[in-house]
Amino acid sequence: MRLQSIIQNIREKNSFLCVGLDSDLDRLPISFNKDLNGIVDFNKAIIDATADYCVAYKINTAFYERYGSKGWKALEKTRKLLPKTHFLIADAKRGDIGNTASQYAEAFFNHLNFDAVTVAPYMGRDSIDPFLSYKGKWAIVLGITSNPGSADFQKVPTVDGLKVYEKVMEKAVLWGSADQMMFVCGATQSEELSRARAIAPQHFFLVPGIGHQGGSLKEVGERCLNDNVGVLVNSSRGIIFASSGRDFQEAAAKKAADLSNQMAAYL
Amino acid sequence: MRLQSIIQNIREKNSFLCVGLDSDLDRLPISFNKDLNGIVDFNKAIIDATADYCVAYKINTAFYERYGSKGWKALEKTRKLLPKTHFLIADAKRGDIGNTASQYAEAFFNHLNFDAVTVAPYMGRDSIDPFLSYKGKWAIVLGITSNPGSADFQKVPTVDGLKVYEKVMEKAVLWGSADQMMFVCGATQSEELSRARAIAPQHFFLVPGIGHQGGSLKEVGERCLNDNVGVLVNSSRGIIFASSGRDFQEAAAKKAADLSNQMAAYL
Repeated sequence: MRLQSIIQNIREKNSFLCVGLDSDLDRLPISFNKDLNGIVDFNKAIIDATADYCVAYKINTAFYERYGSKGWKALEKTRKLLPKTHFLIADAKRGDIGNTASQYAEAFFNHLNFDAVTVAPYMGRDSIDPFLSYKGKWAIVLGITSNPGSADFQKVPTVDGLKVYEKVMEKAVLWGSADQMMFVCGATQSEELSRARAIAPQHFFLVPGIGHQGGSLKEVGERCLNDNVGVLVNSSRGIIFASSGRDFQEAAAKKAADLSNQMAAYL
Repeated sequence: MRLQSIIQNIREKNSFLCVGLDSDLDRLPISFNKDLNGIVDFNKAIIDATADYCVAYKINTAFYERYGSKGWKALEKTRKLLPKTHFLIADAKRGDIGNTASQYAEAFFNHLNFDAVTVAPYMGRDSIDPFLSYKGKWAIVLGITSNPGSADFQKVPTVDGLKVYEKVMEKAVLWGSADQMMFVCGATQSEELSRARAIAPQHFFLVPGIGHQGGSLKEVGERCLNDNVGVLVNSSRGIIFASSGRDFQEAAAKKAADLSNQMAAYL
């Protein structure tokens, strides 16, 4: 999907919401089979309930991979249920040397036809480059993540006054333009969000961490938006597991609509 | 597999060789079907040819994942072919927040029953911890990798005089002991190998990068060995694609035996 289409979808829907399908089998509502078909059926119900309120879907590959080839089959089935109108992200956080990264790019861009893959930057440029050679596809590079462990290495100060995550973003913006690269920047990182935006003024940020992890939409709205919106905010558990009862679809739709309404204030 | 078993296997075989099954379908010898069954048959032939000369096998998940659920099925079949006598590594380089990392740990330790998984450290402690809670299982954390991109972030100097990869290793040795954690340290990084060993004197290093990538076994032998051997050296393409003809099995066995003989000199 092209940058202009992403922006246009956001403007038309007045929403920059991404719904995350972290579909943990152990947490499916009571009405679903506790198996991989149950996950796919649940995903379909969640997609139906939320598609009007979001512009993107993000699949967390781990929750499928946990079950090996059968889990990957459920991932493939879920991918086919996702609407073409939405920006589709494989949250896989892959990262390896060039010839191996190329294989991962083939898996997610070609075999599964996602628009974007999240990519871990630790191994440097040749681990990211293979994801940048597909037209209309995106590498979403980890910048400053939402979890407590982000303090361990990402925030370590380097000799030239920048933290490690700032070095990552500063170099990465030279490798991938704003129409092929985004950054993961966690909503829990209030101060760092402004620094990240200063380093990458044009690039979109994929922002996890609101809801369950404690980040606020207000911080993101105030610190991250740019002239092209520049932000996709993800919510996973807060939406898809809003209720474990028979009303889970209404509850998910309501949560998505609420977030979308809050987002409209910043657009 | 326990640390003592790894060391004992190395002493008995006089070899610290790990054979990497980066079984690229496009490079299979002419006698194999160019499909996923061909990959599994090829892996079986390679395992039969090399098992006597190595103590570990490493599966590069990307070369299977490229084909989605069918590729993962081939990975599962290959896993079942691997001998229990060997240390079995999933080279997956996963890394995500705690609840997601737990899913990956389940995939590789429980579903696939590997002994070890390679793990990317960028997201910090809570992305590594879930891999350390399985008895007899191992997290192999990326330290200083073999590829050119290792210069981009891993070698960035931090304010306290250590490079980023040294900070990673310095912290990680406090999180995982030498009987549950190893580090990836590339053979191409001659000077850094000594620094890495100084920071983690007790931990095993998984060393890629000899052969195709240009690293030397001599450097590794001189800079990395410790009292408990402390090193597994991986070779993938150099062994499994030593010949593309009908003699590929003999060629692979010969390459593995050659490396194993060179290793014996350091034991």
